This record gives sequence, structure tokens and C-alpha cells, in this order.
Amino acid sequence: MIWLTSDNASAVHPVIWEALSAVNAGYAKGYGGDDACQSATAQIREVFEAPQAEVLFVTTGTAANALALATLVQPWQSVLCHPTAHIQMDECGAPEFYTSGAKLALVAGADGRIEAAALEALLCAQEHSVHMVQAGALSLTNVTEVGTVYSAAQTAQLCAIAKSHGLPVHLDGARLANALAATGAAPADLTHRAGVDVLSLGGTKNGLMNVEAVVLFDPSAHWQAQVRRKRAGQLASKGRYLGAQFDAAFTEARWLEWARHANAMAARLDAGLRAREIAPAFAVEANIVFVDVDAAQVTRLEAAGVQAYGEPKGAGQRLRFVTSWSTTASEIDAVLAAL
Amino acid sequence: MIWLTSDNASAVHPVIWEALSAVNAGYAKGYGGDDACQSATAQIREVFEAPQAEVLFVTTGTAANALALATLVQPWQSVLCHPTAHIQMDECGAPEFYTSGAKLALVAGADGRIEAAALEALLCAQEHSVHMVQAGALSLTNVTEVGTVYSAAQTAQLCAIAKSHGLPVHLDGARLANALAATGAAPADLTHRAGVDVLSLGGTKNGLMNVEAVVLFDPSAHWQAQVRRKRAGQLASKGRYLGAQFDAAFTEARWLEWARHANAMAARLDAGLRAREIAPAFAVEANIVFVDVDAAQVTRLEAAGVQAYGEPKGAGQRLRFVTSWSTTASEIDAVLAAL
Amino acid sequence: MIWLTSDNASAVHPVIWEALSAVNAGYAKGYGGDDACQSATAQIREVFEAPQAEVLFVTTGTAANALALATLVQPWQSVLCHPTAHIQMDECGAPEFYTSGAKLALVAGADGRIEAAALEALLCAQEHSVHMVQAGALSLTNVTEVGTVYSAAQTAQLCAIAKSHGLPVHLDGARLANALAATGAAPADLTHRAGVDVLSLGGTKNGLMNVEAVVLFDPSAHWQAQVRRKRAGQLASKGRYLGAQFDAAFTEARWLEWARHANAMAARLDAGLRAREIAPAFAVEANIVFVDVDAAQVTRLEAAGVQAYGEPKGAGQRLRFVTSWSTTASEIDAVLAAL
Amino acid sequence: MIWLTSDNASAVHPVIWEALSAVNAGYAKGYGGDDACQSATAQIREVFEAPQAEVLFVTTGTAANALALATLVQPWQSVLCHPTAHIQMDECGAPEFYTSGAKLALVAGADGRIEAAALEALLCAQEHSVHMVQAGALSLTNVTEVGTVYSAAQTAQLCAIAKSHGLPVHLDGARLANALAATGAAPADLTHRAGVDVLSLGGTKNGLMNVEAVVLFDPSAHWQAQVRRKRAGQLASKGRYLGAQFDAAFTEARWLEWARHANAMAARLDAGLRAREIAPAFAVEANIVFVDVDAAQVTRLEAAGVQAYGEPKGAGQRLRFVTSWSTTASEIDAVLAAL
Repeated sequence: MIWLTSDNASAVHPVIWEALSAVNAGYAKGYGGDDACQSATAQIREVFEAPQAEVLFVTTGTAANALALATLVQPWQSVLCHPTAHIQMDECGAPEFYTSGAKLALVAGADGRIEAAALEALLCAQEHSVHMVQAGALSLTNVTEVGTVYSAAQTAQLCAIAKSHGLPVHLDGARLANALAATGAAPADLTHRAGVDVLSLGGTKNGLMNVEAVVLFDPSAHWQAQVRRKRAGQLASKGRYLGAQFDAAFTEARWLEWARHANAMAARLDAGLRAREIAPAFAVEANIVFVDVDAAQVTRLEAAGVQAYGEPKGAGQRLRFVTSWSTTASEIDAVLAAL
Repeated sequence: MIWLTSDNASAVHPVIWEALSAVNAGYAKGYGGDDACQSATAQIREVFEAPQAEVLFVTTGTAANALALATLVQPWQSVLCHPTAHIQMDECGAPEFYTSGAKLALVAGADGRIEAAALEALLCAQEHSVHMVQAGALSLTNVTEVGTVYSAAQTAQLCAIAKSHGLPVHLDGARLANALAATGAAPADLTHRAGVDVLSLGGTKNGLMNVEAVVLFDPSAHWQAQVRRKRAGQLASKGRYLGAQFDAAFTEARWLEWARHANAMAARLDAGLRAREIAPAFAVEANIVFVDVDAAQVTRLEAAGVQAYGEPKGAGQRLRFVTSWSTTASEIDAVLAAL
Repeated sequence: MIWLTSDNASAVHPVIWEALSAVNAGYAKGYGGDDACQSATAQIREVFEAPQAEVLFVTTGTAANALALATLVQPWQSVLCHPTAHIQMDECGAPEFYTSGAKLALVAGADGRIEAAALEALLCAQEHSVHMVQAGALSLTNVTEVGTVYSAAQTAQLCAIAKSHGLPVHLDGARLANALAATGAAPADLTHRAGVDVLSLGGTKNGLMNVEAVVLFDPSAHWQAQVRRKRAGQLASKGRYLGAQFDAAFTEARWLEWARHANAMAARLDAGLRAREIAPAFAVEANIVFVDVDAAQVTRLEAAGVQAYGEPKGAGQRLRFVTSWSTTASEIDAVLAAL
Repeated sequence: MIWLTSDNASAVHPVIWEALSAVNAGYAKGYGGDDACQSATAQIREVFEAPQAEVLFVTTGTAANALALATLVQPWQSVLCHPTAHIQMDECGAPEFYTSGAKLALVAGADGRIEAAALEALLCAQEHSVHMVQAGALSLTNVTEVGTVYSAAQTAQLCAIAKSHGLPVHLDGARLANALAATGAAPADLTHRAGVDVLSLGGTKNGLMNVEAVVLFDPSAHWQAQVRRKRAGQLASKGRYLGAQFDAAFTEARWLEWARHANAMAARLDAGLRAREIAPAFAVEANIVFVDVDAAQVTRLEAAGVQAYGEPKGAGQRLRFVTSWSTTASEIDAVLAAL
């Protein structure tokens, strides 16, 4: 079977496995007080050129996003995000839960990216009144949900608009490694140097085992974030098994290497499709490829043992293929052959 | 170093490690749809003689307890629990968060156990009025926080009182394996046959890696529980790494074997203390031993590299020693020598 | 000054004042146990032909709407409403607060009314998945926020769609009297006979003093609603001053008489505008008139002492005029003269 | 019938009625922008010698308390209060609702007053840890629920302890007028000069019609409080009917005059009881008298048409008599005759 439904269908990377094995001996201080968590935090600070940043490990991307947002908005405010954002479409209201009732307000834009003019217009039209929910934060997603990427300049532009209206910025970076691999930008340039205040830093979709990090570039929210994590049941007692994974992934920039591989596999699929005169639904900039298919293609893919995530689209379906560290060229070629 | 601060300071049991390695290959369906989760669920149903039960895996005991309680009480009700209960003392308000504001109401009793007469009196005195928070559920903890154990009969008595007043019952079984090992009771007899509706079934403190299970003996709350788990950011995408652990622990009743070992180590500590005419603060019935110590003893323990969890007590301290699958007889003997 | 900003800028109707005076003597049972509340409830049941209905008085329309919705949806569900709905635009997230985090999902339609086809399409496209917020209730507003009215048939059509997907229906009837006056429909036909489960029944905008009613046509949510009202600080201790108002308004169908007057004043404004070849922005069907004006008109209105609620619209403004029981023909004529 | 169940069983004072009538003409700006609200706010600032204070009117004491507390504590903190406090016993979890899940932690003390030593001990014992709910605010009640009064010095002592641990202080002053009448203290001395940060200032129990005020001595929470009030459905649109009442009550210090009358009636009851050698259950310091009665006394009171609030107490009952502006000497004498 060839699973391209999501990058979380893959196993844990062997290098991560080794790192987990290495910490699996003897006793360790619980709740993140262990050496592995400390080392992972130090590495993240260094790679992001953010010595003051605070890092909190959690077990899902949903928890990372919702926890991050809860530190930025009050219950009576809204989070501005794209209509396709994971926090809007795929988290069953987790942001509303963690924030005690904040709203998500949608800002449109082509190709999964928020349009700067739309953001500016929405914020300028906003009346300061006790009768209306006020915008409280901006949330971006990079890689976007349709597989496109924000450049550092695009990120900075949107952050600048948000900041000029007093809003802090969250970045859902479940696939930030893929965005970094795609743009070649420095981690700092896609995040805090562009104006991002809190980052959800993905692990699970890049070869790790159920671990994500919330990176607070502004450390003043650290205590609040720690308490919120605890209340959410997200403070793992055996913290070493979380920290060790990020520690290993950030050693020798492996996380970017794995993301580059995933992107390359998506590019191979993209190129193959175009060679067959099939245009993906969105520009393939990272590790996600959307293709509109008909019933015959669906049948052939099934016959080839290919699993993709599909949604009804006209008479056929729009399929999503997501590549990962473990995707092979032959798997991609099998998909192409079936299409 | 000898860590007896908590049973979660131990590493993951080698058998669990092997099971994790075994599922770490190829692709798997995400979010609990994998084979390991299915198999673990089947085993839990069989061991608890509860074929209709639904099982949800989460990553912490706090999440398990808070999620379980949220399925039982409305925001305007209270959860009755012992003043020492983990949900009251150690979870930073997670139950209040997950339940959207329910209260915890305390019912006292000696030795960490709720007294039946006190429970009955509180419920009989309660006025049915819109002005007062009404009791919504009973929460028991077995092993209790002071290391004592509820027998099946004691559990059934308290559940019967709760039920006669219309309250469902939650059991915090973070150390249920130790209670089962201590009492020799059948899992069903300490839980649903005694009247427990929802169980927090511990894994992490018994050799597993950051995984617990919520067992709904009444499956009617299954959808609600699934949605609440998702909203709480507790639906792990790579579910196989959670399910595989319970699957392995329940194979050949290993979870009980490990608990029996932990209990035996605590009994060894208890016996050694009594031989030295030191009385533990509470009856040692499972894997927890509380001892009141003076400054000299603290110094000797530190010199011996023994870590225990301490609270101020008079001129000295009350220390808590918790044994686990990995505690050795020589570690216990070293503690005894230092005391 | 001529205040047409909102129907809540008017004073309390003299008949209501008399009724308030009549109960202002001696002692009365608190918290709604008084005779006036009982009598008002009986009248509402009779007028709505709903003998089983339960009625709860609260002090604002925001509280009525949010309380009503909280009885219908779970925190992990959404309320479907029109983009202009008061619950979406004007209540600062009160529904999100009362429901502990439910979302509002928007369903468009012309003239302030939800389009049946759009509602059906949204509900049919919805995937039953733990990852997505599921629709939990439909909320209609009659009179709509733009001054149009749903007929009984239109209401029934939308309710039928909602019901076919398992959703209960809320009606924001802050101006229900005006809708009844406009359509001539029986109260039952615009509400429970059409499929409405819970009604926010307006008082304040129709000559009453800070009082609204939540009418539960399905009485099974009565206890929950009572508790939620108490927790929200909406259970007034001197309940007689709330009940007496509805009691008086429903005597001899005065509430409809006052609404008919308000509607007639809006119709007069509409007719006068059309005579001047000014087209209101929306069909004037009840007591609200929107007019797009230029700077000169704004100046003349100000000079005439006319207050209206305005929003920027192109080079000028879109003004909202709302008539009430106290609006006079000469006030309307003064507005027309200024325009 | 003689109603002494609560001071909210009385009607609205004639002076208040006159003031309400006076504003019931013509149009007024909504939502507190009217002249009466402005004037009432100015008077409260002057009487409390707090020119910077911000005042928000709400419709119930429960809303005032819960709103006040929500501005002081985070969801993960606790409010320290006496076990008899209204917020703990009589508000159905409203504080938990408004604060999104904060806990109430109880601090005991004789005669309904928090004991300073107990407060100090609790705060000193508190461990700063992410695992435990941390104290976030102190809430006092004056007049206490048993009818005793805190002096200015007692208030200041408790506030000082709270402040030394970084906690702000809330005062539930549903009967503050009675406490001021009893102590002769200046309003500032029983509140902000003693260290109170936010005051729930009662109206309803002192002759007003369903209106209370939240007084923020620290105005920095003003916006937050306004938004929270709106979200709670507590921003009355016809604000003039709220403001006019406080405006009239504070004119010529009438609110204190009415409270003095109520206190005098309670003193008359107290003196009469003692003359009959019946000792009230608590010192009678304001307008509340608790008396333990037997079945024969209950029967005689019923025969005399006396209504009191009772709770079972041994073979008999503990009755609560609360006097108000409208209680007469002959009513008190009738109670005494029946006892």
C-alpha cells in the first residue's frame, strides 16, 4: 500500500527511533525537567536565532495551535485566519475551547494565502465597540493547506499589517520545515524576524512520533502557556520522550533534510503530472499535491494500492497527495502510472 | 541515583519498547484507525469483561481524568471527590477546564478514602435549587493518593450511594493495576461491576510511554468523548504508537505482573521500615510509602542519591516513595540503609 | 431631538408603567415565583397556543439569544445563521460565551434572509467527522436585521430543512411583534408550528423596560435553561417587575398594536421616500428603513435634530431609521423634510 | 403577610419610583450613554472619594460578583472566600462560568468572617507549581452571610495579607450600605482605602429595582469589564432605568438612611429576642437575624403570617429574618409575639 493521505501516515524516522532508544534507560526528571527537553530547547533557540524564546512540547498539532492562540487572544476577541486554515476546518473547535470562546474570522485570498489588501480592509473597517468582537490576533499557515508557501516577504507584509493594528501573529508551522526547504529562508526570517510572535512547530508530520512544539518568541507568556498546557492535559510526565525527538531532528539540520526529500517527491509527482498534461489544482510548492480526478482514475489508483485523501469535486474527486520523509520515487512513479 | 519521586520517573519497559518497534514500519491509518489501537481495545474489553466498552487513548492522566469527567457532569454541577484527589490537588484545574466550569466538592474520609457516611450525608443534605451547584458525579481514586486501596466491596458501597442519588461514577485508575495486584480482585469487580461508569486507566505509571486510556463502560457517551478528545488536542495522529503499548501491556497480563513487582518493592520498604521501628504515615497497600523524616534522615538520603517527593511536615518532612516496574530490591535496601 | 437610532431609544410605554406601578407595593416572592410572572407566562402560552411552553424572563436580548442557543447546541457544534444576524454581529461573542465555545457558521441569502438552497447545500456537504465542527442548530431572525420579514411559509421551509438534518431551530424575535404585525400571521405560525423550538421574545424594543423572554416550546430543556440563567446572573430577584411588563403587554394584544403603529410609521417613511424618488436600501416590511445618504442629507438631518444609526457607505453613509411605539407622524415628516 | 425571607422581597422605594418616573419620557441614548448613568457614576465616585473609579451597572448581584471576579482572576487561578460566601453557596457556579473555570478555595473563620491567620497560613503554604491551582484573588463579603460586619480595620488587615501575596481583593457589597450604617465608616474606608480593588455595590436589597453596580477602583480593567458585561448579556439597552436608581439613592445619602432603618429593625428584633431570653445564632450587627426555633414556634410564626428563610437544624429549624427599608416596627413586634 502507498499511503499519501497525509504525512502523518508515515512511521517514525529511524534516526528519531535511535534517539528515543538512547533516552530509554534509567530515571529522568519528569514534566520536561529532563536533559533531552533542555537540549532540544537550546537547539531550537539556536536554529531560530532566538535565544530568549521559550519552548513547550505538546503531543498534537491541534494542541500546539490552540495553546498558542490562547496565549494571544482574549475570549472576546477573534483570530483572523484563511478560510482553509487547519484551525478553522480541521480541529473541531479546539481554538474556541482553549481560548474560552474566541471567534475565528475569515480573511480570504487566492492559493490558500491571506490577501494583504483583504486583511488591511477588514482591520480598517473594524469599529471599536463593545457590541462587536474585535480582532485579537492573526494566524498564518505555512505551508498553507493547499500546498503553497508564504515567502519571508509575504509573511513580513501580513505581520506588518497585523502589527500596525496592534495584533500579534501566530504561525501554524505544522509543515514549517517544508516551507523552509521550499524557500531556502532562514528559520528566523519565516518567523520572528517577519513578525511572528508564537509558532506551532511541527514534528509529527516530519518523521517524529506525536510531538509538536510551541515556540514563544515573546517569552512573557511563558508562565501562562505552561499553566494552560497543564490544564489541557498536555504536560507529559515522561518528557524525555518528547524532547529527545526534537533534539535529534534539529541535530545536523536533519529536519530540513527530511523536508527537502518530501518536497522533492512532491515535485516529482508534479513534474510527472505536467508531463501527462494534468495540471494540479494548486501550485506545488512544498509536499502537497491536489489533483482533480475522474472515476476511472480513482479506480486505477485503488487498484495500484494508492491511498489519498479525497473530497467530492464535480462528477469526480479532488485528491490530496502528501509526501513525507518516507515517500519513495517508486511510490510516486506508481501513482503517476495509475493516473 | 535512585528515583522514587514518582512511578513516572522510570523508563519505558523493554517489552513495551519492543512492541513500539514492531509497529514502527510502513504506513498506518491515523487517528486510532490502526490495527494496534483496535487490538488494544479488544484486549481491554476482554480483560474488563466489558464487550460493549469504548476505549479512547490519550497522552496524560490529567487528560484522561478531565475528559472522563466532562462526559459525566454538566458545567453547572459538581464532582464529588476526596480532598487529596489528583483532580483536586495536582491537575491545575484541568477538570474545571474540560467541563467548562464544573466545581469539585470535597468529601472527607480517613486514609485517603471517601467515607461512605460522609458521602451519604452530603447527598441527603443537598437542596434541589437553582441557586446551588448540584452534585453531578462521584470520582474515586484507586490506588488512593496516600497509597491505600479501595476493595471491591468498598467501591461498590460508594457507587451504590452515588447511584441512589442519580450520580454516575468516575474512577481515577492511574494506578489501577497496583490496586488490582493488591486486592487480587477481577478488573470488572473494581470497576463496572462495582458501579464505575468511566475509568481512567493508567499506562504511564506502569511502564508505558505517555499513554493512558479512558474506558467508557457506558458506550452512549462515545461520540461526545471522541469530540471532546479532539477539541482538547488529544487525538494523536500516529495512533499506533499509543495502541501498541496497551496491546503489549495487556498481553499475558503483563500490566498486572509489573504492578505486582512495584507493590512488592513497596512492601519490602514497608517491612524494612517497621523492622527499624519507623511507621509509615499510611498503611502501605500498593506501591506508595509515605514516611515522616527529620533533617538528618534527609541528609543521609541525599548522600545515598535517593530522590523522593517531599512536603514540609513539622520540623522535618513527609517524604513520598513510589515504586515501579523498574525499582530493584537493592534500591529499596539503599533507602532503608539511609533511613 | 428625534431618535430613530433604535427602537430601544424610546421610553417605557405608559401602559407598562401603570402595570409596574401596580405591582410596586408590599412583598412578593422572589426569583419569578410571584403572581405577575405566573400570569405573564400563562398569557404567553395562550397567545402562542403552546400550553406546554416554559418561559424565562431575562433582561436583555443578548442574554435571551445566548441562553436560548446554549440549550440547543453543544460546545463542539455550530449555530447556522445569516451573516447579518445580531448573534454574529452585535453581541460581542455572547453566544460563544454562553455555549462554552460553539461556533457560528454563516449561511448567506438576499435581503437579510437565509436562502433555503444555501442552507440545504451546506448541510448536505457536511462530513460527519470528529475533525470538523458539526452544525448543531439553526438560528433565524424575524424581523431580519435589514428590516425584511420571514413569512410563516418561509420560516417553515427553513425549519424543515434544519429538522431533516436533525437540527433544532432558534428564532431571534427581538422584533417578533413587528413581524407578526407585518405578516398578520398567528404567533404560533411564525414560531412553533413552523418548527421553531426556542424563541427569544422581545420586550424592550416594543415599549418595555429591559425585559425579554426565552420561550421553550419544548419544555424538556427547562431545568437546564433555569440553571444557565442563574449562572449567567440573569435570574432577577425582584421578578415581579419583569413579569408585570409582559403581563400588561399581552393583555388585549397591546404588544401587536404597538408594533402595528411602529410598522405604520416606517411605512410612512418608506412612502415619503419613494414619493421623493429615494429608494430604501431594502424592502421596508416592518419598522426598519435603511437609506443611503450623501453628506448634504446628513447635514440637514443633523440640523433637524434627527438621530439615526449610520455606517460609512461609499462617499456617504447608509443610515438606519427604526420606528417604535412612540414615533409620531410629525417626526417622520420632519425626517422626510430633511431628506 | 410579613416577609422577612430576604431584603429583596420588598418593593421598590417610593423615592426610587419617583426617579424612575422622572426619566421615563422622550428618548435617551442607550447602553449607559444617558445622563442618569453619568450622574449616578459621578455620585458614586464622589461618595467613595474615588474620582478615577469606573462604574458598570448590571441587573443582579450574581452578575456583579461574577463579573467583578472575572476581571481579577485567570481561569487557572482560585478565588479565596469564606465557606458561607454567596459566590460559593448561592450563585450556582456563576463565578466559575464568568471566569471560564476558576476555582473557589475556602478559608474558614468564625462568625462568617475570614480569619486572618487562616488566610496567611493558606497563602504561605502555597507552592508555586504548574500542577496546582494558584490563589488569584481574595473575595470578602460585608455584611457577611450570617449578618456580622467587617470593620475597616478588619478589612484592611485581610487586604494587606492578600496584597503581600500579590492578590487583588473583591468585596461583595450586596449589603454594603448596611455595613456602612453599622460601622459608621466612610465608604472609602470599608473599600479602596482598606485595599479593595473591585466592589459589588448592592442596590436591589436596599430598595432598588434589579440593579447593582460593579465599581472598579482600579480603572485599568474598564474595557475588559465592559466587554465581559456585554458578552454576559448584562448591558441593558435602556440604561437610564438603571442609572436613575443609583442616582436617586445616592442623593442626600438616602441609601445609608434606608440601611440604617433596616439595621434598626434588626436591632429591635435582637433586643426583643434577648428580652425573651432567646439568643440569636450570630451577633446581630446589621439587618440579618438568625434564630434557632422549634416546631411550636414555627407553627406560631406561620399563624402570624410571618415568612422567614429556614434550614433544618436539629429537631427544629434555623430561621433567617432579613429586614429592609420597608420593614416596620409593628412587623417586628408581631414576629416577637409569635416567638
